[in-house]
Amino acid sequence: MSIERIREYVSQIKSLDADAMERARARQAELAKPPGSLGKLEDISVQLSGISGQLFYNTDKRCVIIMSADNGVYEEGVASTPQSVTYFQTLNFLRGIPGVAAIAKQFNTDLIVVDVGVNADIDHPQIKNRKIRKSTWNIAKGPAMTYEEASQAVLTGIETAIEAVEDGYRLFGAGEMGIANTTTSAAVLSVLLGIEPEKVVGKGAGLSEDAYLHKIHVVRHAIENNRPDPRDPIDVLAKVGGFDIAALAGVFLGCAFMRVPVVIDGFISTVAALAAVGIAPICKEYMIASHVSTEHGFAHAVQALGLEPYLHLDMRLGEGSGCPVMFAVIDAACGAIRDMGTFAEAEIDDDYIAELTGDKFTI
Amino acid sequence: MSIERIREYVSQIKSLDADAMERARARQAELAKPPGSLGKLEDISVQLSGISGQLFYNTDKRCVIIMSADNGVYEEGVASTPQSVTYFQTLNFLRGIPGVAAIAKQFNTDLIVVDVGVNADIDHPQIKNRKIRKSTWNIAKGPAMTYEEASQAVLTGIETAIEAVEDGYRLFGAGEMGIANTTTSAAVLSVLLGIEPEKVVGKGAGLSEDAYLHKIHVVRHAIENNRPDPRDPIDVLAKVGGFDIAALAGVFLGCAFMRVPVVIDGFISTVAALAAVGIAPICKEYMIASHVSTEHGFAHAVQALGLEPYLHLDMRLGEGSGCPVMFAVIDAACGAIRDMGTFAEAEIDDDYIAELTGDKFTI
Repeated sequence: MSIERIREYVSQIKSLDADAMERARARQAELAKPPGSLGKLEDISVQLSGISGQLFYNTDKRCVIIMSADNGVYEEGVASTPQSVTYFQTLNFLRGIPGVAAIAKQFNTDLIVVDVGVNADIDHPQIKNRKIRKSTWNIAKGPAMTYEEASQAVLTGIETAIEAVEDGYRLFGAGEMGIANTTTSAAVLSVLLGIEPEKVVGKGAGLSEDAYLHKIHVVRHAIENNRPDPRDPIDVLAKVGGFDIAALAGVFLGCAFMRVPVVIDGFISTVAALAAVGIAPICKEYMIASHVSTEHGFAHAVQALGLEPYLHLDMRLGEGSGCPVMFAVIDAACGAIRDMGTFAEAEIDDDYIAELTGDKFTI
Repeated sequence: MSIERIREYVSQIKSLDADAMERARARQAELAKPPGSLGKLEDISVQLSGISGQLFYNTDKRCVIIMSADNGVYEEGVASTPQSVTYFQTLNFLRGIPGVAAIAKQFNTDLIVVDVGVNADIDHPQIKNRKIRKSTWNIAKGPAMTYEEASQAVLTGIETAIEAVEDGYRLFGAGEMGIANTTTSAAVLSVLLGIEPEKVVGKGAGLSEDAYLHKIHVVRHAIENNRPDPRDPIDVLAKVGGFDIAALAGVFLGCAFMRVPVVIDGFISTVAALAAVGIAPICKEYMIASHVSTEHGFAHAVQALGLEPYLHLDMRLGEGSGCPVMFAVIDAACGAIRDMGTFAEAEIDDDYIAELTGDKFTI
């Protein structure tokens, strides 16, 4: 059973390296700047040291893992975009066409595209075929998938992350493509947090008001009918989630298992992160938030996760498009701790200054 | 008189190219994404088109201009750092030691370091010697400088920007180095906005509570004594400002004159931007905010400027250290509009989809 294998991986996730974090903090205190004046860049450098056990972190080889899948609830008219867009954009990632591809290119970021359930046959040498099945079932009519399928999807995410680390990647982003996946994400979030669908259902790529009210109805109905167990995130993913969200949850777990940092993108990615934390709370230590999505339920999801995103760009594209931008912020954090000079190197030390100026350096 | 030359430059600053902005908006609407889903990245691309008149903007050659100067008010004990740090860090920028240097290196960003008033002789081939004078006078005892000196400093900033554009730079950041310049910035801001010093004086690099109260007192006293005219930003800069802030204000004006984008850093940079807007309101169109500084007066300054910074990193280092990080966000904006595919290129168009799926593409 896949759930056993997930448990095996998860049981091996360890906490961050406290000694390495202490060394990073000590280094930050030595650098030629007022203490704490690089704010979150300092915090990120400390986190990366905790993750890696090293003082400096090399982010050169990085990727966004994109989990592509279709969602049966599409047939309820909850999306403003035809289902075939999942298929086209999955292929388009490799042609550089979608937003995440154009942005990734700016930041030397590779895309790892995984078909976990696109509703069409895909045979492409650069797309990993890990299809669980062509599309989930319609959550308005029954569960999205079986418990075993949900576990398989999570496992696929874990193993995709493991393979990528084995291929040398050291910085990860978690993206997705799946028409109607704001609906399934809202359903998962509503169950995990025990809050009303109204608070987490949004207009996705651009629904009319009527379609939006219908989407809320569909989510409420799906939850009432399928009765997912909020204490078991895999059950929640199986009953009202999707292959894409489940596989992304696995990516977060796999990154924690391999001790590499993973950047969360927008709404769907954040819901997947929350599901992963539900499966293994410790994996949160390996996560780095990126941007504040304008999708309706995002604020609830990120608050529940207890993270504060750094980028306020009003983005709501998904695909992992915010991750490469955050990679740049992480580059800044890594560059600062590695390349800045210390007070001693800056020739700013108490005695030297006192000698030169009669002042005492009091920073 | 320098003020005449400033007026000459300023009179030639033109508004953004509305046609080019319309073309950029049209292109954004054609790209394969829900309309507006790249949020501020779309807005930035439109602004860059307005600035340059071109659809795509090349940000490859970029720099942070750092205006270094000392401030006479240092002798009032308003800084937690000895004055000699201005001198050391000004030299250190070229040794890659300060925060802005380490961060700039991550983003292929050059530093243009200008001595406009460091309180020591600097003879270094890579530091532009544009010293107005060694340090301003103490604003607690009289004006910081003459009106002509303030104008010279502004003019220095304008001409530094012009020279850099002539050298091929196309993306600018505005940074500074000057011990005690949070004091002068707070004084300038207090006068420009007509608000109490308490609201804008902060603890700078790390003052004690007593020193902080004293700093407020010094600012209040300086304003009462020198009676700057809030309607004339150059008078304000002369009476209670500094060479660094005045020269930075000039950088903003010079960038607008040359039609290149300029990124604002933290508190001091934002106050300089506000002074520049006071001199020539139109120059605001060329400015791009970067990060939310935690320095006390920052929120007032950026609100008065009417801009919303994108990066929430709790930084308060100054030096222009936030600018290169924002350059990365601008790279993302430029990459997206240039490299993304259109709906047609994505093979996602109404007819094609209808044929394939029977759906109508309704995005």
